[in-house]
Order: sequence, then C-alpha cells, then structure tokens
Amino acid sequence: MAAAAAAAARAEGPQLPGPPAGRPRQVCSRPYFVVLMVFAHLYVLNVLGLLLFVHLSAGDGPGPGPPPPSEPPAAPGPRGAALPRREGIKVGHKQKVELVPNKVHFMRTLSLKPLLFEIPDFLTEEECKLIIHLAQLKGLQKSQILPTEDYEEAMEMIEISQMDIFNLLDHNQDGQLQLREVLTHTRLGNGRWMTPQSIREMYTAVKADPDGNGVLSLEEFKQLNIRDFHKYMGRQKVKMSDLVRNSQHTWLYQGEGAHQVMRSIRQRVMRLTRLPPEIVEHSEPLQVVRYDQGGHYHAHVDSGPVFPETACSHTKLIANESAPFETSCRYVTVLFYLNNVTGGGETIFPIADNRTYEEMSLIQNDVDLRDTRKNCDKGNLQVKPQQGTAVFWYNYLSDGEGWVGDLDEYSLHGGCLVTQGTKWIANNWINVDPNKRRQLQFQQEMAHYAKEGDEAQNEWTVDKSYSNVHVEL
Amino acid sequence: MAAAAAAAARAEGPQLPGPPAGRPRQVCSRPYFVVLMVFAHLYVLNVLGLLLFVHLSAGDGPGPGPPPPSEPPAAPGPRGAALPRREGIKVGHKQKVELVPNKVHFMRTLSLKPLLFEIPDFLTEEECKLIIHLAQLKGLQKSQILPTEDYEEAMEMIEISQMDIFNLLDHNQDGQLQLREVLTHTRLGNGRWMTPQSIREMYTAVKADPDGNGVLSLEEFKQLNIRDFHKYMGRQKVKMSDLVRNSQHTWLYQGEGAHQVMRSIRQRVMRLTRLPPEIVEHSEPLQVVRYDQGGHYHAHVDSGPVFPETACSHTKLIANESAPFETSCRYVTVLFYLNNVTGGGETIFPIADNRTYEEMSLIQNDVDLRDTRKNCDKGNLQVKPQQGTAVFWYNYLSDGEGWVGDLDEYSLHGGCLVTQGTKWIANNWINVDPNKRRQLQFQQEMAHYAKEGDEAQNEWTVDKSYSNVHVEL
Repeated sequence: MAAAAAAAARAEGPQLPGPPAGRPRQVCSRPYFVVLMVFAHLYVLNVLGLLLFVHLSAGDGPGPGPPPPSEPPAAPGPRGAALPRREGIKVGHKQKVELVPNKVHFMRTLSLKPLLFEIPDFLTEEECKLIIHLAQLKGLQKSQILPTEDYEEAMEMIEISQMDIFNLLDHNQDGQLQLREVLTHTRLGNGRWMTPQSIREMYTAVKADPDGNGVLSLEEFKQLNIRDFHKYMGRQKVKMSDLVRNSQHTWLYQGEGAHQVMRSIRQRVMRLTRLPPEIVEHSEPLQVVRYDQGGHYHAHVDSGPVFPETACSHTKLIANESAPFETSCRYVTVLFYLNNVTGGGETIFPIADNRTYEEMSLIQNDVDLRDTRKNCDKGNLQVKPQQGTAVFWYNYLSDGEGWVGDLDEYSLHGGCLVTQGTKWIANNWINVDPNKRRQLQFQQEMAHYAKEGDEAQNEWTVDKSYSNVHVEL
Repeated sequence: MAAAAAAAARAEGPQLPGPPAGRPRQVCSRPYFVVLMVFAHLYVLNVLGLLLFVHLSAGDGPGPGPPPPSEPPAAPGPRGAALPRREGIKVGHKQKVELVPNKVHFMRTLSLKPLLFEIPDFLTEEECKLIIHLAQLKGLQKSQILPTEDYEEAMEMIEISQMDIFNLLDHNQDGQLQLREVLTHTRLGNGRWMTPQSIREMYTAVKADPDGNGVLSLEEFKQLNIRDFHKYMGRQKVKMSDLVRNSQHTWLYQGEGAHQVMRSIRQRVMRLTRLPPEIVEHSEPLQVVRYDQGGHYHAHVDSGPVFPETACSHTKLIANESAPFETSCRYVTVLFYLNNVTGGGETIFPIADNRTYEEMSLIQNDVDLRDTRKNCDKGNLQVKPQQGTAVFWYNYLSDGEGWVGDLDEYSLHGGCLVTQGTKWIANNWINVDPNKRRQLQFQQEMAHYAKEGDEAQNEWTVDKSYSNVHVEL
C-alpha cells in the first residue's frame, strides 16, 4: 500500500492538470523503465516528504509559506514589481473591462473565495470554432493514462514504514483510519477515483477490515499485505469513468509568431488580469480540452501548496536550485467555454464562499463533494458552459505585499459529468513563482534570451517547451 | 402606526449610533417643540422616501449607488486620491503593523465579510484607564432616550396612506405581513426593541390580529387604529433593557491641542488604517461607551446605505446641497476594549463571512440573530473584550476604483448582554463621503480654514463640533 500511495503521485496530485511536472524533457529519455524507477523513487520521497511536512507544521500560527530566508527585504519594493489583483467587491458586482477596441465587456464577480469572475462574450463564436479546429488538427490525447504494471511493480520496491504511512493518513490522530481519511488522499487511488464503495470493496478483497466497519485500526493496517493489494489493483478493470479525469486535451502555442487569434487571446488575458506582459508571455500555452459524453474531471486545485522548499516548474531550471517539491505555480486560471453543451458539463466550485474550509468536511456520510459524476448538485457554485464566456480565478491568495501568497483552497473545482453531447473548453494558466526573487530572475533570463534571439530560448521558454508536448507523450 | 413608524427614525436607524444626525447645531434652538415637529416631518419623509427608494430599486443589476451624475470622470484619478484598503488575505492571517516606534503589533484577520481585524495591545493598560477617567470627568449620558409623549402626538399628525406603508413593509409582496417583516423594520419600535413576543402582545392589545396567527392581511392592517396603537405604546412601561441600546456614552476630542494620549491614538489609527491624515483628522471624536451590568446593544450597522440622494453628516454643510437622506458615512470603525469584562459583553458579528446575505434570514422561527440579549451564542463571530485590544472593520465595500462603495451589510454587529461587571469600550469612526468630489471639497475647505486659523473653523470641523456635544444634549 505504501508503494501505491507514492506511485499515485505521478497520476494525480495538486499540480494536476497539465503535462507531468516531474518529467523534464531533457532527462526523460530511453531506457524508459530505468528512468521511471528513478522518478518513482523521487516521487515517493516528494509525496511522503510533503505529507510529513504538512503533518508536522499543521499547528497554529502563520504557516511556513514564502518568503524563504533568501527572499529580498520584506518591503513592498518598487510599484512596478507588484502584481495587480482584480477586486471582487461582492458577489454579483459588475465591472467594465476593456479587452478589445470598440467593445465593452462586463466582468461579474461569482465568488470571493476563490476570487472568481465571469466575462460573457470574451471569445466570438468564430474564435471558439477556430480553437477547436486548431486543436483537432494538432490532435488530442487522453488527459490521463493509467500506470502500467511494470510501474506498479517498481513502486513495490520502495520501503517505507507502515507506521509512518498510517500516521500520515490518520488526519484526526485517533489511531484509526476512517474511510474519509483514506479518500482525502486522492493520490492513493493511483489515478483511479476512490469512492467509499470502492474502498470497502478493496478492503473486503484483501481482507483488510475483518470487522467490516470501514475503519482500519493500526493493527489491521499493519497486517495489510502490499502484494495482495497490488494483485487486487491489477485484477480490477478500470474504465475511463473510474478515473480522476476523463477527457482528451492538447496544447496550442500562443507565443510570438502564433496564429493571430491565439495572440489576440493572450493580449486579452493580459488586459483582463492586468498582469504584466513579461509574466503572461512566459506562461503555459493554451490547453484545449474535449470531454465526450460521459466525461468528467473530479474536483481538484490547479496548482499546489507552496512551502519554502517548493520549486515551480517554470522557474526550476533557471533558478538552478534543488528542491524536494515541485508544483506548476499557476497563479491564475482563465477558462474558456468553446461550445454550448447539450447536457451537463458545468464547472463546479463545491466550496466557493464557504464560511470555513475543512478538508474533511468535503466528505461526509458517504457524500464526497469532489465527486463530479455524483454530487455536482450539492456544490456551492455551478457555472453553466456558454460558448464564448470566460471565467477566471486566482488559485493563490495575495501575500499582502503585492505578491503571490498561499494556495487558495477554496479554488477547488471540477468538471461535471457531460450527460449529453461534447464539451470543449480551453485553459490559460498564468504562472508566477511565489518566490519573487526567482520569478524576477526567470523574467530577466527570458528577456535576455529574447534579445539575443538565441536558439537557446527554445530550451527555456515555457510556452515553446510545451508547444510540441503532444509529440513526446 | 404610520406616524410611529416614521417617528422611530429619530431614535433608531441605519445612521445610529452617535449624536442624532438630523439636528445640526445651528438650527436646533428653542422653541424645541416646534422644531421637533418640523424635524419629525422631515424624518417621516426621509424614512418613507428611503424605504420607497429601496423598494422600487430592489430589482437585479448594479444598485443605484455612487457615483451620481455630477461625479468627475470614472478614471481612478491621481494615486494620492485613492483610499488604501487593508488586505484580509484569509481568516487567521497575521500581519505586522507599525503603530508606535520600537514596538511590533500584529493584526489578525477575523473575517473577510466584513473585512475585520483584531490588534492586541493597541492601547496600554494606562491608556485605557486614562480614557475611562477622561470620560468620567466629562460625564456620560444615556445613549438612547425614549421619545416623549408630545413627540409621539406630533407624529400622529402626519398623514400617509396605510396602503403605502403596507406595501413597504410587505417584503416578499405576498399581501400579508409576517412577524419577521415587521421585526426587520427596527425603527417601527420607536427605540424599543421589538421581539416576536412583544409584537404579538401589541397585536392582541389593539385587536389587530383577530385570528391570532401573527400575520396581518391588508384588511387587518387597514383596520388598525393608530390612536389605539399609540395609547397602547404610551401605557407600556419601558425598561432600559427593552431598548435597542442600553448604555451611556460621551465624546472625547482628539483634534489639535487635545490630550497627548488622545492625539497619539489618532496617529495610531492613521497608521493602522493607512487612511490619509486629512481624512482621519476631520473625523468624529472618540466615543467612549459604558455598559453596566444588564447593558447591551442589539445588532446594527454603524452607517447607512448610500444612494445618489444621500448626504453625509460631515460634508453636508460644506457641500451645500439639499439631500433627502442623510447618514454618518462611517467608512471605518475602530473599536477599543478598555477593560476586561467579568461576564458577557462580547462583540457579535452575527452574519460575518456568511455565504449569502438575506435580511429576512436573520429572523427565523422566532430566533432573531440581531438580539444580543438572547442569541449571541447563535451568531457567527464573537470577539471577547480584552483590555487594550482594538478591532477594526470597514462598514463599506470598495467601489473598485479606490474609493468607498456600497454599504457592507455583513458589518452588522452588536454588543452582547453584560452579565457581570461593567464594560468600557471606545469607538473611532473615520468618516468618508462615498461621493469623492464632496469629500475632496470638504477637505479643501478644512485645509483652508486651518491655514487661516479662522474662528469659523470651529463651526465646520466635525471633531470640534462634537467636542462639546454633551453640553447640548
């Protein structure tokens, strides 16, 4: 079970969705199997380290977030270096935004936690069609692939104490594992979405819970045979609908020289978010996603929590620091609806504007609010897809000094089951390193390469590096 | 009943607490009775006009708030003219504030709706004692006085259609007056706090509700005899505990030449709120309040809603505009706890950080969340008095352009019943006109008078004009 817990990190984790962050292009070459094993090891340490870190620092008081000790003085610094943040004012508030000449757009506040806005007619019908067309030309692939058996076997070779894992999972520290404590660790499912039902079935199959009460004591947990667990997992037929994410996607380049519509959208995103061009231009390309009938994406956050030890995928190589954790550092998500969906396919924010956030309260009495195939009707806020509409939100809070602060856990969202027809959306993520020094260094390097017109730029620019990503997968 | 509804405006309304806003010093001279009647008339029009206005503009879409047509262009204007606003980040967030040299204070976010902070040790024990001492020297008077019988009689002379009043009160427009529809209009109580129980008793006494179901149809309402109603009200013995507000207070001058501790507190308030000196210096003086055992203040907002027709008490005379409504325009409240209370006396924010605000949901199943004698335990957020601690919050939202926007209804708060001992607090309000042009004009005039050292300044300065207010009452 230990191995599976760790292995799952690759398939699902806070840094989903998008290309697997832990596999930089330079390294992930043949022979695949050896590399996979090395990465598996790294991931196990990553995930367990992170869990342990959260576990140990779960006490009161200001969290261990940025800035790390190497940060420049705490003063806000020059104005130009601060990130403007749109104001929500209150739910329902409407404000004008100037996105294109000679047209007025309105931005309506949908929630304050997360800070979430809706902009109708952000894209024209023609633009939506063009994006779908470009994506189809490029080709889409499954957003999530299940790990192979080889991979699962590799996982088994890593040894971690059962006791440590038990303590990490035992959220309320009562010496027992409740069903919802297991469910919360989505990564345990190794890409499969876990439900109270499926965990009970697994317990029964591997005889993990003799008294059948759905609760594992430390004794019961210790007697779990990992081999049995893997055998059981291997025997299970996994359907697409059992996955965390059931969709197909591709990436469209938006950098210099891209299709003029793609450029224009990037410009509009700059005006919408008011974030500096040097940040938006070096963010991920456009992700276009297709959900067929029966498709879904269970609720998740688009980026991970930030600790002093966390690196961002986009600044990692430039910063040249070794970091035990990594996440995508998606400060902002801009989501575009490219078509009107016949049935379902809403975007759900299950806990938007909740008074308090308790991870455990997401799952109660066998109702998992994150489950977008079952419980979208019980979530706080649903956005119905409408062709051309954009929604945008902040995945991170402000740090109070004009920079990126802690992860906003209220940004939890998912794609509800498409009950009829097909759903097309696109995502623009704006990547900002919560470590300001690293972000500024990254931007400097980018500016430098751009000036030199150097071939090396291709190696570094986030956008470019993603532009051919489907070829590699 | 119509007259009573209107008369109550004087005793309680959104612009409470503080000196009655509708009685400028220049006008309110002898003979009192005649003046009172004139003001009574104005108030009736005020209150009914406001009700009607809210009623008519209760539809969807952005409200009719500022800026009015006479506002300067919508552009944010020069940076210096924007009001900085502290960031809450998230509940529990702690940030350093520099208030006095060589000492670090921390400000903790208590809620985001309203934006509310707590700062321990804002005042020293000695400062708290001094403020109490100064207040006692000056003398305190009852915060609320019941209208005399003369006053109530004057009220009766005003004629307004029963039908109009019915429609104004019938919030859900179902042609019936539910108990909570009546309760919501606190001002109907004419200074007395209404409870479901007291309204039922009144109905019975004046035979207003023959079927005794607590609901008045339009027919039943029309047959209400105002004379009976007033006779009943006159007969009722009113105890202090039946009032909206059961406390005593006085005002302490903080302007130039004031006691150095008072000056120092004003300086700290500037640093805390980061609001410009020219605004803070021309705000109300310090209100010191004493709640004896059994004292309370039912939940209220410190300032009123703002419509294009609304004037602010502090800019009214300078702006020289006639306006049908008036409120105190208290952008910020800073509340200081001057002693540790033996029992009770918490500050309650019944709906802080609620996901949604529905005025009617405040009163359900005979539980009125605004009732601080009964239901403090059911409110969302309680602050326990701790000597020297300050709490501060914004009564208005931002307008998104760096100025004051709509009233924040979540700022509803009250003082819970003091069950043992005495409670001493003080309030600093910072007055800003949501109409930016008027505020800037006010500041210009103030600066002008200050420069001239003119005696006329005394007439205009808000602080000065309040400094002797207890003499007049």
